[in-house]
Amino acid sequence: MRHRLAPHQYADGILRGDRLLLSRAITLAESSRPDDQALAQAVLTQVLPATGRSIRVGITGVPGVGKSTFIEAFGSYLIQQGYRLAVLAIDPTSQRSGGSLLGDKTRMETLSMNPAAYIRPSPAGDSLGGVAQHTRETMLLCEAAGFDVILIETVGVGQSETVVHGLVDFFLLLMLAGAGDELQGMKRGIMELADALAITKADGDTTASARRAQLDYTNALHLFPPTGTGWPPPVRTCSALTGDGIADLWTMILAHQQQMHQNGEFQQRRQAQQLTWFRALLRQRLDARFYSQPGMSERLAALEVQIRAGTLLPAAAVQVLLDE
Amino acid sequence: MRHRLAPHQYADGILRGDRLLLSRAITLAESSRPDDQALAQAVLTQVLPATGRSIRVGITGVPGVGKSTFIEAFGSYLIQQGYRLAVLAIDPTSQRSGGSLLGDKTRMETLSMNPAAYIRPSPAGDSLGGVAQHTRETMLLCEAAGFDVILIETVGVGQSETVVHGLVDFFLLLMLAGAGDELQGMKRGIMELADALAITKADGDTTASARRAQLDYTNALHLFPPTGTGWPPPVRTCSALTGDGIADLWTMILAHQQQMHQNGEFQQRRQAQQLTWFRALLRQRLDARFYSQPGMSERLAALEVQIRAGTLLPAAAVQVLLDE
Repeated sequence: MRHRLAPHQYADGILRGDRLLLSRAITLAESSRPDDQALAQAVLTQVLPATGRSIRVGITGVPGVGKSTFIEAFGSYLIQQGYRLAVLAIDPTSQRSGGSLLGDKTRMETLSMNPAAYIRPSPAGDSLGGVAQHTRETMLLCEAAGFDVILIETVGVGQSETVVHGLVDFFLLLMLAGAGDELQGMKRGIMELADALAITKADGDTTASARRAQLDYTNALHLFPPTGTGWPPPVRTCSALTGDGIADLWTMILAHQQQMHQNGEFQQRRQAQQLTWFRALLRQRLDARFYSQPGMSERLAALEVQIRAGTLLPAAAVQVLLDE
Repeated sequence: MRHRLAPHQYADGILRGDRLLLSRAITLAESSRPDDQALAQAVLTQVLPATGRSIRVGITGVPGVGKSTFIEAFGSYLIQQGYRLAVLAIDPTSQRSGGSLLGDKTRMETLSMNPAAYIRPSPAGDSLGGVAQHTRETMLLCEAAGFDVILIETVGVGQSETVVHGLVDFFLLLMLAGAGDELQGMKRGIMELADALAITKADGDTTASARRAQLDYTNALHLFPPTGTGWPPPVRTCSALTGDGIADLWTMILAHQQQMHQNGEFQQRRQAQQLTWFRALLRQRLDARFYSQPGMSERLAALEVQIRAGTLLPAAAVQVLLDE
């Protein structure tokens, strides 16, 4: 990275919508260098009063469901409606390679050319906590830069959906009709996190099966415990190709926002998310302090072999570690 | 508690099936006194080779579903089949009062009179981790005492189901037909933890609706992600009154055990549970060490007020705490 600026220089730039400075601040927030982190926190603190005003939407679905084309269509619609849109993409599979979803691909072509849209892949993180922190801070920086809808995209196969659920106001699960195969890769429990399901590719030959899936899922969700917020998750169909259902989804999200504001759930969810984030971060730092002690990982590995074999009781192993 | 014995005295007594010594050892394991804990660990270590051989079944369902009568009928059937049965009951609502599910109630009357059954309520715990640890250690002690089926009962409304899911080989969710109301209180995500659903009270006038619910849930579960173990969760009906379906449920659990043994999932699940328990315990102790510092809870409370209000960034709050 080139030379650093003072915190207020980033902050001022972000607040007047300077994308270059926004991007550089995000890179700082993603950095693992302590001085970058300190600088990023100083920037975040300065822009904090200008955050929190966007509508935060998580979008998830397994590979093949058509997330990118959906976000292209949905995002373009939002921009037509006059919104300024930021798309943050979390890709847990990129953690190894250090690559990212959008790296060299030509995904979201239309959207990425649109000046009202800002697309930012979330980089490799060494932990889910890290991913959550980076994505949350990126989201805040984007809010400060004036984006009023934030879409956070994730692949519905890992642990990152729980993280995204903890970041957003609305969690949308994209599904394919006649699923079968796609369900194989989907994480269990994810259906019950969703604020709505959208059956994608409801066009042409697959329109009928999408409508059937809509009915089936509607019936199924009735048998499951409610969300506790007075919002029974609707099941919709949509098509990125024809645009059918895209506007309806946004109307639904706005209706959800309105209802949550009225019943106080909005405020409560955001505050709870802040606290959860704080506690997770604190725990992560405490863990790190413990696990980074010299020789600790070898020590742990040796104990875990015995624990797996059932020859050492977990409580005894913990005692050994803490006594050392 | 009366005076303590030496570890081998408890261990020998447990291994020959002495219930009084079993109960006293469980009380030690539940105690928060460090010397009791050390003694309990010594006992556990001695009996460890005799543990792990039971079939561990978690049974959950919201109040009103008929858990106690189900366990009476199911447990009595198991005893008729020649099994020795331990029933451990976790009641999160008793954490406040210090009371317990079975306290002064006349629940499980038949079973509690049966010499082949051992019923033990899990006492008040100050944390879910505590509940998990006590229940796991009680389970091990019961296994050492020769019980070959352990039923762990929990109320399906809180966090304790996740804990129980992490203790057992099979997780059975009891449901009522024509639910509606009962679903209101049920924890989200719990359906997707279940290895099977059993619709209770399938007798008399409610037989037809129980069968309908069976069909509905069977269809619904097909739309949800699979368990990843090659075991699609069946939906059954049963009646504690007539005994219908009770034997079938046990046959199903045995079939599950057999399949999991054959495909290696059994071993894998138990090993993973051991490791998870170890890590949770370690984390709990590390947390405790941090949070029990003088003045820490007041300090935390003050920071959390600012975090909730959105005037302090979580990362900044963590830094403040760790720098102190």
